[in-house]
Amino acid sequence: MASNSFGTLFRITTWGESHGAAIGVVIDGCPAGLALSAADIQKKLDLRRPGNHAHTSERAEKDDVHLLSGVFEGTTTGAPISLLIRNHDTDKGSYEATRELFPPSSPKLTWLEKYGVFDYFGSGRASARETASRVAAGAIASKIIEEAGIKIVAYLHGVGHFGTASMPTENTVLTPSFCLNNDDEAAIGKILDEIEREQDSIGGAVGIWAFGVPPGLGDPVYEKIQSKLASGMMSIPGARAFEWGDGVAVSFMKGSDHNDRLQYRDGKMTPLTNHSGGAFGGITNEKPLRMKVHFKPTASIGKPQEACTRAGHIVAYSPEAPRRHDRSIALRAPPVCEAMCALVLADSLLLSRSSKIAFPSSLESAMKE
Amino acid sequence: MASNSFGTLFRITTWGESHGAAIGVVIDGCPAGLALSAADIQKKLDLRRPGNHAHTSERAEKDDVHLLSGVFEGTTTGAPISLLIRNHDTDKGSYEATRELFPPSSPKLTWLEKYGVFDYFGSGRASARETASRVAAGAIASKIIEEAGIKIVAYLHGVGHFGTASMPTENTVLTPSFCLNNDDEAAIGKILDEIEREQDSIGGAVGIWAFGVPPGLGDPVYEKIQSKLASGMMSIPGARAFEWGDGVAVSFMKGSDHNDRLQYRDGKMTPLTNHSGGAFGGITNEKPLRMKVHFKPTASIGKPQEACTRAGHIVAYSPEAPRRHDRSIALRAPPVCEAMCALVLADSLLLSRSSKIAFPSSLESAMKE
Amino acid sequence: MASNSFGTLFRITTWGESHGAAIGVVIDGCPAGLALSAADIQKKLDLRRPGNHAHTSERAEKDDVHLLSGVFEGTTTGAPISLLIRNHDTDKGSYEATRELFPPSSPKLTWLEKYGVFDYFGSGRASARETASRVAAGAIASKIIEEAGIKIVAYLHGVGHFGTASMPTENTVLTPSFCLNNDDEAAIGKILDEIEREQDSIGGAVGIWAFGVPPGLGDPVYEKIQSKLASGMMSIPGARAFEWGDGVAVSFMKGSDHNDRLQYRDGKMTPLTNHSGGAFGGITNEKPLRMKVHFKPTASIGKPQEACTRAGHIVAYSPEAPRRHDRSIALRAPPVCEAMCALVLADSLLLSRSSKIAFPSSLESAMKE
Amino acid sequence: MASNSFGTLFRITTWGESHGAAIGVVIDGCPAGLALSAADIQKKLDLRRPGNHAHTSERAEKDDVHLLSGVFEGTTTGAPISLLIRNHDTDKGSYEATRELFPPSSPKLTWLEKYGVFDYFGSGRASARETASRVAAGAIASKIIEEAGIKIVAYLHGVGHFGTASMPTENTVLTPSFCLNNDDEAAIGKILDEIEREQDSIGGAVGIWAFGVPPGLGDPVYEKIQSKLASGMMSIPGARAFEWGDGVAVSFMKGSDHNDRLQYRDGKMTPLTNHSGGAFGGITNEKPLRMKVHFKPTASIGKPQEACTRAGHIVAYSPEAPRRHDRSIALRAPPVCEAMCALVLADSLLLSRSSKIAFPSSLESAMKE
Repeated sequence: MASNSFGTLFRITTWGESHGAAIGVVIDGCPAGLALSAADIQKKLDLRRPGNHAHTSERAEKDDVHLLSGVFEGTTTGAPISLLIRNHDTDKGSYEATRELFPPSSPKLTWLEKYGVFDYFGSGRASARETASRVAAGAIASKIIEEAGIKIVAYLHGVGHFGTASMPTENTVLTPSFCLNNDDEAAIGKILDEIEREQDSIGGAVGIWAFGVPPGLGDPVYEKIQSKLASGMMSIPGARAFEWGDGVAVSFMKGSDHNDRLQYRDGKMTPLTNHSGGAFGGITNEKPLRMKVHFKPTASIGKPQEACTRAGHIVAYSPEAPRRHDRSIALRAPPVCEAMCALVLADSLLLSRSSKIAFPSSLESAMKE
Repeated sequence: MASNSFGTLFRITTWGESHGAAIGVVIDGCPAGLALSAADIQKKLDLRRPGNHAHTSERAEKDDVHLLSGVFEGTTTGAPISLLIRNHDTDKGSYEATRELFPPSSPKLTWLEKYGVFDYFGSGRASARETASRVAAGAIASKIIEEAGIKIVAYLHGVGHFGTASMPTENTVLTPSFCLNNDDEAAIGKILDEIEREQDSIGGAVGIWAFGVPPGLGDPVYEKIQSKLASGMMSIPGARAFEWGDGVAVSFMKGSDHNDRLQYRDGKMTPLTNHSGGAFGGITNEKPLRMKVHFKPTASIGKPQEACTRAGHIVAYSPEAPRRHDRSIALRAPPVCEAMCALVLADSLLLSRSSKIAFPSSLESAMKE
Repeated sequence: MASNSFGTLFRITTWGESHGAAIGVVIDGCPAGLALSAADIQKKLDLRRPGNHAHTSERAEKDDVHLLSGVFEGTTTGAPISLLIRNHDTDKGSYEATRELFPPSSPKLTWLEKYGVFDYFGSGRASARETASRVAAGAIASKIIEEAGIKIVAYLHGVGHFGTASMPTENTVLTPSFCLNNDDEAAIGKILDEIEREQDSIGGAVGIWAFGVPPGLGDPVYEKIQSKLASGMMSIPGARAFEWGDGVAVSFMKGSDHNDRLQYRDGKMTPLTNHSGGAFGGITNEKPLRMKVHFKPTASIGKPQEACTRAGHIVAYSPEAPRRHDRSIALRAPPVCEAMCALVLADSLLLSRSSKIAFPSSLESAMKE
Repeated sequence: MASNSFGTLFRITTWGESHGAAIGVVIDGCPAGLALSAADIQKKLDLRRPGNHAHTSERAEKDDVHLLSGVFEGTTTGAPISLLIRNHDTDKGSYEATRELFPPSSPKLTWLEKYGVFDYFGSGRASARETASRVAAGAIASKIIEEAGIKIVAYLHGVGHFGTASMPTENTVLTPSFCLNNDDEAAIGKILDEIEREQDSIGGAVGIWAFGVPPGLGDPVYEKIQSKLASGMMSIPGARAFEWGDGVAVSFMKGSDHNDRLQYRDGKMTPLTNHSGGAFGGITNEKPLRMKVHFKPTASIGKPQEACTRAGHIVAYSPEAPRRHDRSIALRAPPVCEAMCALVLADSLLLSRSSKIAFPSSLESAMKE
């Protein structure tokens, strides 16, 4: 059903379960001539790694990526690129006990209904471990969009009732936990300490901005740039809302406030404000793209809950220590959101090459130098 | 680029401009054996019509649908269904004056950049008139999902600072302006009267619930049910945010509050609450689907604004009367949201037939009776 | 199931039945900036028309094409192009009698099995009338590939035991019945006269050459240029074999005979011979593309045959005069084969724009002037 | 560009180069509940292995398949299945000398033009080694179609001027070199001995029959069963012609000879003959599918030829011993043709589940027991 693929021309297919031999991704449609090494990908993967953050899973995943195809003498060839990451921390024994248990909000229920079988070791394919494959593929997409001058900043906007008052610029350097500044990091740390004490989890939001996006990306009607980004972001485990431009606040706004007036500057027309999030009619307008994704709190918490057994009995349920789950899904989501954004933009750049009979247009020339 | 198509197995392709001869849609992949008449489609189209609502466009579109193919003696044949709606109210003269103008937030800017040409009569293909084709195709999707016992309620949740305190049930009968009850309609009417006086426009939100959805719809990873719905909803002109389940509020919630506990009832396991919006791991769990879409205020307002000419001059801009635009995009959006939801669910129902080697499973039997 | 669509970036979707109100096609992904009028399409459609050839159907179809969308002031806009052709000669009465009959080789059998319903008026969607939509869409594809300097010659290679000894060049002007020269036309006419006397039908073959094809079209592995052409040609009603390059004769050849040696001429490498049909490894090599498609004899013949009734009785079967079928499917197939070739090449040209990070390459520049 | 993928619902994506670390394939859309082990796949792969046939490459590939995902406790889960085969016999040194050479019919020419880079070690991605991935994926498709009662026989029809006079049945047991009987094997061996002496290569043809195919597979118009098979077969390296049913011979036939009369037998209508190859109107009719694929002679021969250097000089060219290429591509093609046929049929079986609103129909019930 191709439900493990994403993208049209720059198209990825991910595979692998949490506790299988390996996970991986095949990237089909990467143009030839891009300088690419395993190190380019490893660098992005390392940002996603758990275990190096105070409030994330202690699972010691060492995600070494293997670049198996599609690159010849340091350059992409146009052939599919296969990336493989072996699973190491895969003690299956610890899961035996939960085989018959259905914890709250568990995909085990729906997958069993749909497929009749469920890999219960770390939730198998339903595990967020799949997002490592997205980050690996996103690293390649990032190299493509960098050639066009695009820079993405994906940051931890907030958790619980804290949301940052700052905004990124294209020169933003994030803190180690993906915050815009140290004050935000401290404020969020405080909330997480409290959640930690309660052995609970908390929701949070990620902000994503893309700077330097050339005009003309996205297609009208069903492939609007925000429609593709919404699809990608909402496919990240735990995502529950997608805001584009002014987001949910538009419900409260008047047209006279929301409208982005145009002006003529430096020989071309450009919007004065950016309530629209960087696109008019679904096509980019040179302003930064800006969006927000909200993540639900992690379902696995230390605090005692109830689970249901296959036989229908309600039993006390409290996943054992050491913690293998994050206090907030949002904590590790920024690199995943960045990857999804890069994948959509790389695909859109390639698709945009077909919009006109004649070219190069400004769009194409963005990728030529 | 197939950017005018939506869906995988039940796949629609829309075409047509605001002021061309006609608009239409081809539905490919509709299963054979469905009773279908033009009247089934007309009924849904009439709900979308402007001009019969106090605060919507006065444009007198009479949307008569022509069913040109795919039906034989009252039954679908498996062949593509072509629907055509002629455009009538297409006075092109009134647009000549604005040919050189770039109003605020106008797709003319981005389309010209992307394509080098723009049909400025009523914004051509960028017009929301395209949504009539969605509603027509959605009417057929609706007939399919009704066979599986699904009922969608898409209602006007609110405009401006008003949001309804009510929730729909599967027996909800909407008011003529798609509100859940008369009090909501009155409250919203008051806000719109005020906006009307100001010659401004206002944002608003649409709520969509789907009742009776069988378990097992949606696919893991990139085709999660909420990911497909987000893609569809965010492709509606003016959509700026998509909330699934508890939506943006999940950012503030703790795991112990958000988790949906399971229980064993009537011989099967089912969630006790529905914070997750009707799906676990991207696959439906038998609870109602619930989501919200936020729409920005209409860009075209009577209140004077500034536009930019092609030559770069700023000029006063105030679209002439009679009004051809709605006070709020949200007012006419419910039937469009319903259509997008029906399209996603019909496609998901067909896709779900391939999830197992053996069948019929409960999923398939849902469509058998 | 999208089974009525063809192409990836330049994608067509056809619809309509033989005796419905109309047939048509939607073209999605046509680049903006192409000069296009209904006359461009009509010209190609007129070549396919039956009734103006001695041995083709006497059905007087007048195929007037209506261009409903996607063109603004004579230029494509990037929006979908909708073409509609009304059906005129649709006397349904003449088919009533055959409702219960299953003639030899009839799709009625398989469609009823698959769909449970069959539009028996002129075989509904199973009619070769659908190929008019292909020709209409192909006319637009032709305009695109002409911009890249490509010229297609699709000719009647032979019928029965006659096959032409000539080969086309890019300056070939075909006879009215698509033959390479008058001698071929006379030889074929003689065979058809004989078949006419017998009230039988006869098979035949169409040759298709494409001149001026830039190097680099087609993709390795599953989208080889010959693989896409084979798929397109074998989807034409009655096609039974596809030969590429030396075709079935390769079975008898030795490597030393079949190999195309390379030489350096005019500053670039180019093959000396063209046994490979214009592509190495599935990608075009600047030599002309050459292929052949074989068509079975028309199933409907005047000569008495046997049909089976729904009740299982064998009855004499002889379709009434005036003849509504061609003596040979191959007679009217050349414009359809040309259209399928143009569709594949236009799509491949657009896809080739994504093969490299940097461009314009020679491929793209082919379409720039 | 997804050009390394094949199939719609049962969709494969292959990757890997001849002399890279590994090759592999990801299968997305395999239904859950299928018993599957690595041994099932290894069995089919072993049939394709070179080196165990007198006239095939002496390259000692040991193709051990690793099943990395998608199977849980011996059963498919609906998640993507990742298969990996390491490359062993990858002495890159032997290729250095040919880096600057362009042998006859070489994809190096076209790939360099298209991509600007070419992996010249064993022709990289252009190598027929990719077909091992097809065979591996085809093994899974085979298990699916076997559940529906389908059996494929893919055999060596002939090489050079020898073509078998026999036809397969569903009980046919092939000889070790895929011949229908020992006499054919002897006749073909004699031809190959002669070719061996000449240090040349020879073309050949593969016949493929599928028995027990349920009615209703394939879709009208662009997804006719023969159209999909043609696309798959013509994507196999070296394929030059595809014949369906009576193939090229239809050009010489009359309608009265080619028509398949229907009869009523055992309570249902069924064709008396099978000139049509097992389908009417592109949809299967319960008769065996039958087709033939013609392969050109191997381009790499021992006999001295000429090659062109990058600088444009013509030099003598004769690939060194030991032979790494087959005397005839057709010799090892039968398992690859079988795989492509299985892939198309498995995909078509799943797609056919969506043809009707109501089911199970006879199609679906074919897979139920």
